[in-house]
Amino acid sequence: MKKIYTIVSPQMFPLFQESTIGNQVVVIDILRATTSMVMMLENGAIEVYPVANLDEALAFDESVYLRAGERNGLKVEGFTFGNSPQEFTKDAVEGKKLVITTTNGTRALKLSEGAARVLVGAFLNLNATAKFLNQSDNDVFLFCAGWKGHFNLEDTVFAGAMCEQLISLGYSMDDDASRAAKLIWDCAKSDLARFLESASHVHRFRSIHAESDLAACLKIDTSNSIVSYQNGILVLNRL
Amino acid sequence: MKKIYTIVSPQMFPLFQESTIGNQVVVIDILRATTSMVMMLENGAIEVYPVANLDEALAFDESVYLRAGERNGLKVEGFTFGNSPQEFTKDAVEGKKLVITTTNGTRALKLSEGAARVLVGAFLNLNATAKFLNQSDNDVFLFCAGWKGHFNLEDTVFAGAMCEQLISLGYSMDDDASRAAKLIWDCAKSDLARFLESASHVHRFRSIHAESDLAACLKIDTSNSIVSYQNGILVLNRL
Repeated sequence: MKKIYTIVSPQMFPLFQESTIGNQVVVIDILRATTSMVMMLENGAIEVYPVANLDEALAFDESVYLRAGERNGLKVEGFTFGNSPQEFTKDAVEGKKLVITTTNGTRALKLSEGAARVLVGAFLNLNATAKFLNQSDNDVFLFCAGWKGHFNLEDTVFAGAMCEQLISLGYSMDDDASRAAKLIWDCAKSDLARFLESASHVHRFRSIHAESDLAACLKIDTSNSIVSYQNGILVLNRL
Repeated sequence: MKKIYTIVSPQMFPLFQESTIGNQVVVIDILRATTSMVMMLENGAIEVYPVANLDEALAFDESVYLRAGERNGLKVEGFTFGNSPQEFTKDAVEGKKLVITTTNGTRALKLSEGAARVLVGAFLNLNATAKFLNQSDNDVFLFCAGWKGHFNLEDTVFAGAMCEQLISLGYSMDDDASRAAKLIWDCAKSDLARFLESASHVHRFRSIHAESDLAACLKIDTSNSIVSYQNGILVLNRL
C-alpha cells in the first residue's frame, strides 16, 4: 500500500531527506506562496522561478522576467507584482516568464530536490494534485513550509486535507504527523476560514493583507493545474 | 499574560532555545520515560539520574545506584529494573538512588538546561505540574521528546492537556503548535487510550509491552509529585 508522511516544518526535513529520494514531495505554503504559484501556472505563465530573496530576483533579466515579491507586506519597488494570488490573472501572466521571491516556500522546494517528483500544493488544486500523485506508485511526503521553521496551522490543515484525498485513493498514513494533520482537517473543514481565525500567521496576515486574499487562498478545487518543480523552475502538468 | 509554546520535537528546539532561557520547560515523554520518572520520585526515590545510553548507566557505581533500562523491549542484563512505570513501587525505590536510560527523554532534558526551571511532565501529575508552573511568572515551553526526533501523538496530546490546564489558570497559547496540540487533546480526552490506538509508537509499544503499562502511562492526576531536573538530577518538589 502506498504511504503518506507529513513533514510539519523544514526543521523536521533532515529526518525524512533520505526517504524522499525517489519518492514524491508536495510542498505546502498556503499563505500565499504555493497558492500564488498555482495561480501563475493556471493562468498561463510559461516559466516561474521561485527564489529565496530579493537579490536573487534582481539577478534575473528584467526585460524577460516579470518580478513578484513583497517585503513587510508591500510590493517591492520596481517589481510588477506583490505576492497576492489575485494579481496573477490571465491578462497579467499569460505567456510570461516570472520570478517570485518566497523565503519559506523556496527553502522547502530546494530541500526537496532529491525527490523523483516535487509538486506545489494549494487548496485550489487539491483534488487534481492528489489524482496526479496517485498516477505514480511512489509514497507521498507532505512538506509544510511553515513560517521561519515553525509549525503552522494553515499548512498542516492542508496536509490533512491531502491525507483525506489520498486515503480515498487507497493510500495509508504512516506517521503520527499525518494522523494529527488529518484530525486537524476533520475539525476545520466545515468552516476553514473560521477555523484559521486563531492561527498565528492568519492573524498576522489579516493585519497587512486584504481579506479577499485569505479567501483566495482557501478556495478548494477551482483549478486542474498541477504544478511541479524541476531544476529550479515551476512548470505546468495536466492529468 | 503568561504564554504557552509547544515544541513538537527536539528537531524544533533550536527555534526555541533562546526563548527558553530563564523560562520554564516541561519535558514530555509519556511512553514511558517521564511517566516512570514521576513514579520513581512519587514512591520515594531520593535521586534519579537520567542518562542517554547504557554506557553512561554502567558508569554509575552499582553499589549505590539501582539501574533501570531496556533495549529492544527487554530489561538490560544485570539491571534491577526495566523501564516500566509499574516496576517503581514504594517497596522497590523508597530511599534509593537510581539511574535510568532513556534516549529521547534525556536528549530533551539536556537541551532544556538553559531554562530557569525544567519539569518532567506525565498524565499522572498533570494538574500538580500545572499548578506548580503557575507559581512562577515565567512563560511555559511544552517540549515533546518525540521518538527519534519524530512528531508523536502521545506527547502532543499531553501538551494539549497541559495547555487546557494552563489556560484555566490564565495562560494563553502563543503559537500554532499549542493550538494544534489543544485541538488534538479536545478530540482525545473522552477516551485517551482508544484515541491513541492509531498512534505509531502505541502500536509498537503494544507489540512489546504489557497492556497494563499503557494504562499506567495514561492515568490522570493520581500523583501530586512535581519532578524537576536540576544539574543532571531529577528531584521531588511539592506544591
